[in-house]
Amino acid sequence: MKIEVVYPGRIKNPFAKEGFNEYMKRLNRFFKLNVVNVSSCRTDDRNKCLKEESKKLLKYIGSRDFILLDANGKEFSTKEFSQFIGKYLDSARDLTFVIGGVYGVSDELKKCSNLILSLSRMTFTHSMTLMILAEQLYRVAKILSNQPYDH
Amino acid sequence: MKIEVVYPGRIKNPFAKEGFNEYMKRLNRFFKLNVVNVSSCRTDDRNKCLKEESKKLLKYIGSRDFILLDANGKEFSTKEFSQFIGKYLDSARDLTFVIGGVYGVSDELKKCSNLILSLSRMTFTHSMTLMILAEQLYRVAKILSNQPYDH
Repeated sequence: MKIEVVYPGRIKNPFAKEGFNEYMKRLNRFFKLNVVNVSSCRTDDRNKCLKEESKKLLKYIGSRDFILLDANGKEFSTKEFSQFIGKYLDSARDLTFVIGGVYGVSDELKKCSNLILSLSRMTFTHSMTLMILAEQLYRVAKILSNQPYDH
Repeated sequence: MKIEVVYPGRIKNPFAKEGFNEYMKRLNRFFKLNVVNVSSCRTDDRNKCLKEESKKLLKYIGSRDFILLDANGKEFSTKEFSQFIGKYLDSARDLTFVIGGVYGVSDELKKCSNLILSLSRMTFTHSMTLMILAEQLYRVAKILSNQPYDH
């Protein structure tokens, strides 16, 4: 099973980048991981940005299943999230997570997603969402391996 | 209006500490802020730890109103959270946030809280909860000041 995290742009906050890298490193012991950056837009025009970045994301994803992260999506407890990931593990299917850019993603991309997952009702920065997702995936890997979480 | 964040122990992850400090520094332009550490327990006995740390937290808080952070609490969108904080600002009341230790807090402390607030249905580390709270407070300060969020 391979887990892929796809997002436009770079992680801006140095601490979020450090946290993301730390959990991705720890996760390597459990899953085959792939982090993919598509280029972010270079305009402040919100609609143009949404369209442009979402098009690039969809082009990369192709016909694969994917989970989109969005504040208005379905919420899971960490236990429920681990059960969800466990099912993918059992079926040996790959998992692709997509995180939108600064302005989010297009409606078209939302419609194509297999699940819209919410980490919180609150709005987080793009960078912090990436770090939190990596930490939750690490937490899930520890739960599924029956290992205690090491802070 | 003064905002206080009270928690047992120290922030373990260097990146979470860096993120927390960054947002606390930015927040200083908006609110009078106070960060208070009560000492964390030195035992692995979950129940003893819960009791000991919660007793120290309650002793520090005294008769003040406080908001406890817990995954099973009430969820707010960032907009709703800003409206909630705005009401405190209008009434010039102080706000105290309490974050539990590694094992959480006692039922007694939960019962004494004026609100149990959930940042997410997912379980976050103690350190990351602190960083996320600081980022959300900064986001709220920007919303209430009609300023754009600077990533």
